[in-house]
Amino acid sequence: MLRLATSDADFAARFDALVDARRESDSDVSGQVAAILADVKARGDAALAEYSQRFDSYTLAEEADWNISAEACRAAYDALDTDLRDALELAAERIRAYHRDQLPANRDFTDAAGVRQGAIWRPVDAAGLYVPGGRAAYPSSLLMNAIPAKVAGVERLVVVTPTPHGKTNPLVLAAAHIAGVDEIWRVGGAQAIAALAYGTDRIRPVDVITGPGNAWVAEAKRQLYGVVGIDMVAGPSEILVIADGDNRADWIAADLLSQAEHDPTSQSILITDDSGFADKVAVQVEAQLAELATTETATASWQDNGAIIVVETLAEAAPLANRLAAEHVELAVAEPEPLLGAIRHAGSVFLGRMTPEAIGDYVAGPNHVLPTGRRARFASGLSVLDFMKRTSFIALDEASLGRVGPAAVALAHAEGLPAHAKSVELRLK
Amino acid sequence: MLRLATSDADFAARFDALVDARRESDSDVSGQVAAILADVKARGDAALAEYSQRFDSYTLAEEADWNISAEACRAAYDALDTDLRDALELAAERIRAYHRDQLPANRDFTDAAGVRQGAIWRPVDAAGLYVPGGRAAYPSSLLMNAIPAKVAGVERLVVVTPTPHGKTNPLVLAAAHIAGVDEIWRVGGAQAIAALAYGTDRIRPVDVITGPGNAWVAEAKRQLYGVVGIDMVAGPSEILVIADGDNRADWIAADLLSQAEHDPTSQSILITDDSGFADKVAVQVEAQLAELATTETATASWQDNGAIIVVETLAEAAPLANRLAAEHVELAVAEPEPLLGAIRHAGSVFLGRMTPEAIGDYVAGPNHVLPTGRRARFASGLSVLDFMKRTSFIALDEASLGRVGPAAVALAHAEGLPAHAKSVELRLK
Repeated sequence: MLRLATSDADFAARFDALVDARRESDSDVSGQVAAILADVKARGDAALAEYSQRFDSYTLAEEADWNISAEACRAAYDALDTDLRDALELAAERIRAYHRDQLPANRDFTDAAGVRQGAIWRPVDAAGLYVPGGRAAYPSSLLMNAIPAKVAGVERLVVVTPTPHGKTNPLVLAAAHIAGVDEIWRVGGAQAIAALAYGTDRIRPVDVITGPGNAWVAEAKRQLYGVVGIDMVAGPSEILVIADGDNRADWIAADLLSQAEHDPTSQSILITDDSGFADKVAVQVEAQLAELATTETATASWQDNGAIIVVETLAEAAPLANRLAAEHVELAVAEPEPLLGAIRHAGSVFLGRMTPEAIGDYVAGPNHVLPTGRRARFASGLSVLDFMKRTSFIALDEASLGRVGPAAVALAHAEGLPAHAKSVELRLK
Repeated sequence: MLRLATSDADFAARFDALVDARRESDSDVSGQVAAILADVKARGDAALAEYSQRFDSYTLAEEADWNISAEACRAAYDALDTDLRDALELAAERIRAYHRDQLPANRDFTDAAGVRQGAIWRPVDAAGLYVPGGRAAYPSSLLMNAIPAKVAGVERLVVVTPTPHGKTNPLVLAAAHIAGVDEIWRVGGAQAIAALAYGTDRIRPVDVITGPGNAWVAEAKRQLYGVVGIDMVAGPSEILVIADGDNRADWIAADLLSQAEHDPTSQSILITDDSGFADKVAVQVEAQLAELATTETATASWQDNGAIIVVETLAEAAPLANRLAAEHVELAVAEPEPLLGAIRHAGSVFLGRMTPEAIGDYVAGPNHVLPTGRRARFASGLSVLDFMKRTSFIALDEASLGRVGPAAVALAHAEGLPAHAKSVELRLK
C-alpha cells in the first residue's frame, strides 16, 4: 500500500506515477484472436465445437449439447432459496426502473425557416451478452447487461457462456430467467464473440455485443468493433473513497476491500484530510484481511495497488479525483453535494456515509458496468443507449428549400461537388 | 449498374450479394500503424517532424511551422466571398441550433424505497478533430465535427491536419474560425492521432478523437480506442432513394449522383415501384454524368456499385431498406410518414420530394457524420453525446439502506464476495 501526503515534497511526481501506473494486462493475444475469428467465420459451428473441446473440455455433439433451454433456467430459478430469489427479483426490478427512466425521447420540430428536423431512437434487432464461466460468472452482471437491453426493446437477447467440463452456474441461469434472455449458447472465448458477430448455421448474428470477459474476449470485441457495436473495453475494478475523520474506520476499510477482493489488479484508494483516521483505516484493513475468505486476492490488491493519500483539506481531493477518473467514487462526508459538483470524471459517485459502493453493485438501480482505467474521462456506464441507435430525419418543402437551398448550393460548389449542387438547383427552379 | 426486380426468380440471392458486397478497403496497415503509434509515444515531436517530412513534404522546424494561428483563420474568414461566408455562417448557426436541442438532461430522483439516484452529463475536457488534407478537406465536415463538441461544452478543441508541401485550405481555416477551434496543428496521418492520444511536448493529449481520414488514420483510431474515445469507423458514403413514379427523373438522378461523386466506392441505389420511371432515371443518370465535372469518380461509382431495384409495391421497399441499413435514405413519395415508420435501420432519412440529401450535408442542421456499411443497424450519427460522458450517483440513508441493504448482502455472499457483504452489514447494525 502506497502512502502519500500532498504536503510531501515529492507528492506531484509520486501521484503522477500512481495515475499513470498501468494495471491492465499487456499480453498480446491479437494474432491468436485474429486466427480464431477467421476460423469461426470460415467454418462456423465445426470450429466452435473444436475450440469448446480444446479450451473448455466440453463436447458439442448432439443438438442438446449446444444450448441451455428456457426450461433449465426456469428450473434453476424455482430451485433457489427464497431469500436469494427475492434478492435477485428486487435487484432486477430496481435496475429495470432506473433504466426505464433512462429511455431517450424522440425529437420532431419545425424551425423558423420551415425545416422539419428530428430523430427517432430505436433498439437494435439483436444483442449478444458474454457471460464468463467459472468464478467470475456473476448473476448481478447478467442482470446489469441484460435488463438495459430488454428495457431498450431488443427483441432477441442472446447469451454465450463457456461451460467448462459441462458445468453451469444455477444463479446465472436463474438471473437469465428473470431478465428474459432469449437464447443461451454453451460457447465461450473469442470463438463465441466471432459466432455472435458473423453468425453460424446455429447461431444467428447479433448487432451489439456487451459483457465482461478475459483478454481473448476483450481483444475479439475490439477486433470486431465496426462489424458489430461493442461496449467499452473493461479493465480492473477501482474505488476511490474520499472521507473525513468523522467516519468509522471499519466501514471505510470494508469499502476499500470490497474492490480489492475482485482481483489482484483491482485498486482501492483512500483520500482523507485526517492523518489519524488514515492510520485507523490502515489498521482496520489489516484486521479485516485476516478474516476475509477472499484474503489472498484482496491482500495482493491492497499491497500492490492500494493507496492512502492525506490532504490538507478535502477541497484538494476533487482535482486529485479528476486525475484518477475512478470507476467508483465514495464521498463519505456529511455534505457531499459540493464535492459531487467538483468531481468531473467518475463512473459512479456514492453520496454520504450510508452509501457503500456494494449497494451500487447489486440493488441501487444504476448500472454497475462502468468505465475503468481512467476512461471515465470520456466514457459512461452501460445504459439503454448502448442497445439503441438514432435515425435523424429532415423534411423540407418548396418554401423552406427556397430559404436554405442557395447556401447549400454555394457550399457544394466551393467543395467541388457539382452533383450535390445540382440536386438542389434543379428543385429551386 | 445492377438492375434487379423483386419479381426476378433469383432476386433473393442477388439482393443478398448486394447487401454483403464489401466496398471497404481491406488493405492491412495495422502493423505499420502500430509502429508509428509506438514511435510517436516514445519520441514525440521529433517523430512527428520526421513523418511530416516523409509523408507530407513539409518541414516542422521553427515554432511557427507547427501550427496555424487563430489570426490566420480569422484572415481566411475575412477574405471569403460574402456569399460563401454567409452560407458557412447559416450552416453553422443551423447545426448549432439542432445540436443545442440535443443536449441531454441530468437526472435526480428519489424512489419509493428512499434511494436517491441520478446521472450528470458533462463534456470531456478536450477533443481532437482530424481534418484530411487535399481534396477531401471539407469545411462542412469541420463544422459538423467541431460544433457538436463546442455545444457539448468542450473547452479545448484541437484540430490536426496535414498540410502537404505547406498548402492550407482557406475554406477549412474559415470554418475553424466560425466553429471556435482552439488549436490547429499541422500534422496528419496515424502520427497525428498518436499525438492527440498520448500527447507530446507541444501537443497536450485529448480525451476523444473524431473526424474522417484515410486507412492509416482509421486504423490508428481503432488501435487507440480505449486510450481515448473515438467516433464510429467510417466507410464509403451511401444513398438509398425510394421513389414512386410521380417524381422527376432528373431530380432523382442528381440525388443518386450526389453520393456517387464522393468516391468510386460510394454506392447509390434506387428502389421504385415503376419500371418505366426506373428506365427514365437510368437515362438521366447517363445524361448528367456526361456533363459532370466529377464524372470520372461518379461514373466509376455508378457502374461498379450503383443499383436500381424495381418492386411490386413500395411496401416491399422497407424490408429491403432495413437489410441495406443505408447511411442516407430518401423517401421521394407524397406521404413519406408510413415508410419512415417502417424503416428501422438508416443513418438519416430525407422526407418527401423537396428534401434532396445534399441539404443534409450542409444546412439542414442534423449531423452529416453518419453510420455507413450497414452500421446503422447499431450505430448513430455524430452528436453532442460523443463529446460528453455520464456520471451516475446514488445516495442512501439509514432507512433506505435498511430496505435494500439485506438483498445486497444476500447477493454478495452468493457471489462469493464477503467484503462486499461486510461493507453493507456493518452499516445495517
